[in-house]
Amino acid sequence: MSNQRKIEVTFLPGGEKVTAEAGVTVSKAAALAAVPLALPCGGKGNCGNCRVVIQDGATAEPTAAELRLLTPAQRGQGVRLACQCRLESDALVQVPPASRVVGQKDLRQVQLREVPLDANVKRYHLELSPPSLEDQRSDFRRLKEAVQDRCPELTGFADALRALPAALRADNYRVGVTAVGRRMADVHPEYATPACLGLAVDIGTSTVVAYIVDLETGRPLSTAAEHNPQIRHGADVISRVEYANTHLAGLPTLRQEVTHVINAITKAALDQIGADARWIYEAAIVGNTCMHHLFLGLDPRHLAEAPYVPVTNEAVDARPAAVGLEMNPRGNVHCLPCIAGFVGADTVAVITAEEMTRQPYPVLAVDIGTNGEIALWSGEKLYVASCAAGPAFEGSQIERGMRAGPGAVDRVDLDTDDLTFTTIREADPVGICGSGLFDIMAVALESGAVTASGRMADAAQAEPLLPGLRARLIGEGNDRRLVLAGDASNGGGVYLSQRDVREIQLAKGAVRATLEMMLEHAGLRVEDLHEVLLAGAFGNYIRPESALRMGLLPPMPVEKIRGVGNAAGSGAILALLSRAERLYAQQVAREAEHLELFRARDFQNRFAETMMF
Amino acid sequence: MSNQRKIEVTFLPGGEKVTAEAGVTVSKAAALAAVPLALPCGGKGNCGNCRVVIQDGATAEPTAAELRLLTPAQRGQGVRLACQCRLESDALVQVPPASRVVGQKDLRQVQLREVPLDANVKRYHLELSPPSLEDQRSDFRRLKEAVQDRCPELTGFADALRALPAALRADNYRVGVTAVGRRMADVHPEYATPACLGLAVDIGTSTVVAYIVDLETGRPLSTAAEHNPQIRHGADVISRVEYANTHLAGLPTLRQEVTHVINAITKAALDQIGADARWIYEAAIVGNTCMHHLFLGLDPRHLAEAPYVPVTNEAVDARPAAVGLEMNPRGNVHCLPCIAGFVGADTVAVITAEEMTRQPYPVLAVDIGTNGEIALWSGEKLYVASCAAGPAFEGSQIERGMRAGPGAVDRVDLDTDDLTFTTIREADPVGICGSGLFDIMAVALESGAVTASGRMADAAQAEPLLPGLRARLIGEGNDRRLVLAGDASNGGGVYLSQRDVREIQLAKGAVRATLEMMLEHAGLRVEDLHEVLLAGAFGNYIRPESALRMGLLPPMPVEKIRGVGNAAGSGAILALLSRAERLYAQQVAREAEHLELFRARDFQNRFAETMMF
Repeated sequence: MSNQRKIEVTFLPGGEKVTAEAGVTVSKAAALAAVPLALPCGGKGNCGNCRVVIQDGATAEPTAAELRLLTPAQRGQGVRLACQCRLESDALVQVPPASRVVGQKDLRQVQLREVPLDANVKRYHLELSPPSLEDQRSDFRRLKEAVQDRCPELTGFADALRALPAALRADNYRVGVTAVGRRMADVHPEYATPACLGLAVDIGTSTVVAYIVDLETGRPLSTAAEHNPQIRHGADVISRVEYANTHLAGLPTLRQEVTHVINAITKAALDQIGADARWIYEAAIVGNTCMHHLFLGLDPRHLAEAPYVPVTNEAVDARPAAVGLEMNPRGNVHCLPCIAGFVGADTVAVITAEEMTRQPYPVLAVDIGTNGEIALWSGEKLYVASCAAGPAFEGSQIERGMRAGPGAVDRVDLDTDDLTFTTIREADPVGICGSGLFDIMAVALESGAVTASGRMADAAQAEPLLPGLRARLIGEGNDRRLVLAGDASNGGGVYLSQRDVREIQLAKGAVRATLEMMLEHAGLRVEDLHEVLLAGAFGNYIRPESALRMGLLPPMPVEKIRGVGNAAGSGAILALLSRAERLYAQQVAREAEHLELFRARDFQNRFAETMMF
Repeated sequence: MSNQRKIEVTFLPGGEKVTAEAGVTVSKAAALAAVPLALPCGGKGNCGNCRVVIQDGATAEPTAAELRLLTPAQRGQGVRLACQCRLESDALVQVPPASRVVGQKDLRQVQLREVPLDANVKRYHLELSPPSLEDQRSDFRRLKEAVQDRCPELTGFADALRALPAALRADNYRVGVTAVGRRMADVHPEYATPACLGLAVDIGTSTVVAYIVDLETGRPLSTAAEHNPQIRHGADVISRVEYANTHLAGLPTLRQEVTHVINAITKAALDQIGADARWIYEAAIVGNTCMHHLFLGLDPRHLAEAPYVPVTNEAVDARPAAVGLEMNPRGNVHCLPCIAGFVGADTVAVITAEEMTRQPYPVLAVDIGTNGEIALWSGEKLYVASCAAGPAFEGSQIERGMRAGPGAVDRVDLDTDDLTFTTIREADPVGICGSGLFDIMAVALESGAVTASGRMADAAQAEPLLPGLRARLIGEGNDRRLVLAGDASNGGGVYLSQRDVREIQLAKGAVRATLEMMLEHAGLRVEDLHEVLLAGAFGNYIRPESALRMGLLPPMPVEKIRGVGNAAGSGAILALLSRAERLYAQQVAREAEHLELFRARDFQNRFAETMMF
């Protein structure tokens, strides 16, 4: 067989090439080329799901399986089953998205609880009977009646109606219909029906994260994140509001910046799975109230002045064009509801993702971000509050802070006479991410390198310190640093500075003071809490021990603390997958009691205490 | 008092100027300048509706009435009551639309039955309580709760939410809110709230008519009409379909033409009342199925080939941008439902305007247009059918045919020895409109100038003719003409030609054959008909006697025949004013039985008979 004729097979859209023996099946060639083709029935020709389009090249005649599973119209357009079709010459093979296996990408930060799939966007695969003089129903009536039991009272977007007559007749009345709510947004011939995707976005003050999910299966497919570019106008929400107020084009600028970054990370997440923006039929957006307002182009000025009212805290549905998102133009953009001026849809999403209000016992959730938002379920009532934590916990305003990318110090431990650390992907250390920051603070406090008042020990005075740690302390006064790696004396290296410690001190103090006052307001003690959830872009990675040691949380058994990852993102994804979850979010937003603690009389006293480590 | 100081007052937006004595009230000056200012309480300062804005000029201090009826914010912006405010110097006065009387224009062709006003678009005038630290409801929640009982579950367009915070605070929380369905499309400070208008459009194969109605009062305000520019691609619907099929840009061209003419006549109708396109929040569109498809950009090809199915016959709601209409971009375009490939939303609208299916007895309606559509209510069941009448009844393909404008011969009678005629506005005769055409045919048949077979008498042979008529007959064979005015021998004059008679003969034959076959199908005799309605752009003017004499209708007592004007337009207006009427139209479209008579075996035989006069 070694003298068998060789052919070259090229796969689209990826351009993967492979040389194989003539007569090879497309599925075999795809495996050789590492093209991730889905073969649900194991390549037995039973399911008809491994459809590909032979764009160029000679093939063997269709097999009996292909004659059974493909229509003449499809075959006329070169559609074949990859497990059946044998290639006889060099060939160009298009692998449609529906036939592709998409791998889970960096989705570790999102934990999804199981919900029955009932998305607002639905894909229907229909096979209709053709019209006749005895059945003169219009094209749309025919289609509508075929989905009547699953989607009553379907109506159609003008654009989708325009595509209807050709789509019906291209594949012998077999079509894929995409309904957004009760409206037909797209209709495709069955063989040309693309994936049906949803986009979940968590707009943080410092970081924006996007997730792509498959709305037909409920599966998360890919994710991407980027800094919020608004950060150049100020690190916290108040400075964003001020920028909007004091610049003539302030609001449009801030809006354009967040829209732009969402479109960019969405494209990055789509590129990971070879998908197109037009396949996204719905987006679910969460963020704190200020981010929500800036995304929607709503004037945020009244958030920042008494009596601190949002323009709206209701759930908002908008067309993609109205908010500038690059996705299917007939899709829907759903912004989850907010609660108050500084407690936004992100908190609502954390609460729903964790079903806090369905628990029979008290639960506390801390969403660690630039705008710290805290939710307390007493077992009967839901309280929410916010505090200006500042961006320290997201790595901003920390001298060597960075996002959780390669080279970020993500874990620090105390060894017998020194600290040890690891970095993401074991790359050379280039900075410290959120989890590393919590760890290094815990280690510094534990070892005495930082005192309870937040003062970093001088190397000279640091007598009781472990020798390894003592060697890491350099500088004087406010320039003291605890060096992890590199030469920190001339502007390089990775280290924790005295100024960093002060930032962290303010942030944790604000969170701790707020949550203590919430507990008091609810008449609960720390011991009553059954569970404490740590959410936020870094929440999943932060070690409960470190959060306890550095005093973000009051003393409690470490087992009660659970990292829930970016629960706000999870809540946004759930709102895409389930209409019931969307209603649950609205109920949560309506029923939550907002506590204005930050402006309460005794907040400052409390804050002065909780700033201490 | 004759030496009193004179001032000049200019009114905006019309620019009307008047000289008056210093100290004159604005309302008096407006009356002198013939500016149609509304004074609902008779100028007593009781109602506060005659608000104007003083843009320039000195005035007396506000009266007690003004202090009571206007907020400080309004007064700060120059808002005054016209009946109270006295002008002390030359002044520039803006009269907002809400303070203006708009006159009924040429609306004779539309007869509206009384319906309870319940438009899909609603205007709410609200006075909200301002927020406080005790009432931190968001701006939108505050507004939503204030209309909850009248409009449950209001949501907001992003653009309207963007306008909300400023609108609330500009007039001390007094706003005018415009809701399209359940969505807030606009919010204005009360004093700046414009009129709330609806647009009804009847797209005929030959003529397009637009009506503007006030959705707050239900009153029709103005109308305008124009030829359908698609006519250059062919006079009837089949030739439009062919044009769409055989030209690469055929469908987009036809679509653009009808959109363009609708926008043009809408602007003309708006200009009559000084209104702006953005004040139109909803359009209701009727037309035959082909016009409906071309307007929506739906491929009409399958209408013209067996089994003759429309893309959709459901009611369609679309955004203005999706169909190219110039109106409020957050408004709604509602296309009434069609019944079958050649029985469209225009027929549905005629049926609903006349409440045919609510009558206890048989009623027949003939919509006289290029595409003749006939509806028969048996007292129990609704039948509809269509016939290709051709454009003769609309004056097209009639050598001296014209629309019902100045100089059109609109009425012809037989005198003792000649015919007599009148023209619209008594202008010099320049052509013949639909009603004149029916009359002249009736006179020609009555007098013997045209025989029962449709042959026009030669002057030489026309011995028994009245002398006056004999003198009007010129030419030979197929060039014979019956001259009404002018010199018809050298290409001028106004006349009826032998070819015109043949066109009319074909048209009336098609209508008559169709309606007779419908009666037979329904098991009814002509005597069973309680009423026969003549609808169409000309329907109101056609004399029942002439319709009978020329054989469009079978012999019956003339009292049974009633012209109902452009009932299709009336039905479209009713759909704007009442959601119940909209549902009624959907019920009519669903329940009507369509008869495919045109392709029935014995149609041609019947047609050959009914072509005779």
